[in-house]
Amino acid sequence: MIKKLAITGGTHGNELTGIYLVKRWRQNLTLLKRESFEITIRLMNLKAIKEGRRYVDHDLNRSFSLKSLSDNNLETYEAVLAKEINTLLGEKGSIHPNVDFIVDLHTTTANMGLSIVVSNDSKLTWEAIAYLTIMEPELKVYRWQGDEEGAFVDSIAPNGFAIEVGSVPQGVLRADLFLKTEALVYHLLDFIDKHNKNEVLNLPREVEIYDHEELLDYPRNEEDEIVAMVHQDRQDRDFSLIEKGDPLFMTLEGETIYYEGETLYTLFINEAAYYEKGFAMTLAQKKVLSLVF
Amino acid sequence: MIKKLAITGGTHGNELTGIYLVKRWRQNLTLLKRESFEITIRLMNLKAIKEGRRYVDHDLNRSFSLKSLSDNNLETYEAVLAKEINTLLGEKGSIHPNVDFIVDLHTTTANMGLSIVVSNDSKLTWEAIAYLTIMEPELKVYRWQGDEEGAFVDSIAPNGFAIEVGSVPQGVLRADLFLKTEALVYHLLDFIDKHNKNEVLNLPREVEIYDHEELLDYPRNEEDEIVAMVHQDRQDRDFSLIEKGDPLFMTLEGETIYYEGETLYTLFINEAAYYEKGFAMTLAQKKVLSLVF
Repeated sequence: MIKKLAITGGTHGNELTGIYLVKRWRQNLTLLKRESFEITIRLMNLKAIKEGRRYVDHDLNRSFSLKSLSDNNLETYEAVLAKEINTLLGEKGSIHPNVDFIVDLHTTTANMGLSIVVSNDSKLTWEAIAYLTIMEPELKVYRWQGDEEGAFVDSIAPNGFAIEVGSVPQGVLRADLFLKTEALVYHLLDFIDKHNKNEVLNLPREVEIYDHEELLDYPRNEEDEIVAMVHQDRQDRDFSLIEKGDPLFMTLEGETIYYEGETLYTLFINEAAYYEKGFAMTLAQKKVLSLVF
Repeated sequence: MIKKLAITGGTHGNELTGIYLVKRWRQNLTLLKRESFEITIRLMNLKAIKEGRRYVDHDLNRSFSLKSLSDNNLETYEAVLAKEINTLLGEKGSIHPNVDFIVDLHTTTANMGLSIVVSNDSKLTWEAIAYLTIMEPELKVYRWQGDEEGAFVDSIAPNGFAIEVGSVPQGVLRADLFLKTEALVYHLLDFIDKHNKNEVLNLPREVEIYDHEELLDYPRNEEDEIVAMVHQDRQDRDFSLIEKGDPLFMTLEGETIYYEGETLYTLFINEAAYYEKGFAMTLAQKKVLSLVF
């Protein structure tokens, strides 16, 4: 039984879709109202939102590991903020959490379409995803074990995931992706309501997922400067196969660097925020996950 | 006779195409070498580049008005930098300028394709543009009299313009637009070389331009907050006609706001950097400009 769900926007201050959706809902809370549970909405990183930046000191969406949350010596803006949020929407790992489900709204400069990034393996999280794949057939599901595990916003609740839509530049609001994100959230709320009321849902027993395998960095020189860019034949081909010999990067001298690894799928290609994190794209395997309800 | 041309990148610190082109050319200056004139390349706003931001204190590409350049009380980072650049690549209005032609490399989150933004009406500038429209038929020309006239980087030299390519997010390098910008610069260098050597060029006598008419802001509330976004039917339709009754904005409540003005063309639609400047797009008239050689 889900008693309380949180929708969070502006975890990254330059991802406008979530920020403006929260503004929309604040003006009209009845849009979110469902009979069987309570909803809280929250703008997350107010200082970064005001400054139009991803973060102030460091990435808020990598600040929710148990280690960081329990480290009293961490006093950066986002470390302090993460602890406040954990008190309100967590606490992480608690058997009496304040919030049962978190959906965190993101955008990406990569051509990820309408996608979910999930690290949580709770049964309810996957039931929700199964429902959403039926309601939005274009939805893609990425199971992420990325640069830092278990440090996402949604990790402080027992159930949840992030919505990623793209491509959209940082600092830009696109109406098409705003509407898609909004629709997906309403489907999620409907699912939770039906779940709470024990409605028979005939959910699919299988979900196609892209399972994280690897982070792939840009070629760099000895000073750690990027010396090649994503090849134009790879740009925008998120959720596409990459095979040995496919063009991968183009150096500043115009030379092509070819992919040498095993056959996988490329995701998060050329995301602006990941230049500094050290990856040009991620690689994933496509799998069919069997769900047991 | 052009004796010296400057190519400037990173005037905006989060527009990577120009920054990486300068890096490319620093590694291989012979790519720029032409017989009849000298070339200087320059990374402009080093602090903003390092921080991955458009600017530090204010927009460098609005800092070159004669008024600002002569105001000794202006001590912001970009004001001081503009004066330094003006000494090196100007001086603005001088009859003995250090540089005869400036091409300033930009990108935009709007779907502007390969375009030139020109404020300079020198004969040579327009001859160069006429040549480029032949070499790159997709090239669009926007004559800009925007939010601040005569304050662009290229205004400190007797001839010049800005190259704008898009759409590309801030902080992202796209190989396709990198290559297109590079090719356009080489055509420009070829033109200058031919011009200096008095080669017969058979330039077209007419150039199709989009002539700036108006800045169009987002709908805002009393607190000056944006309360509507570019309508999805208008998004990405740069250099397209807009007519009375066409969908223009969508409010946060989902209502469509229709265009009420005269028939014009929409440009720079939904550019990230212009949210704070107060325009959602610009409006232009399409004209055919007759050139006299």
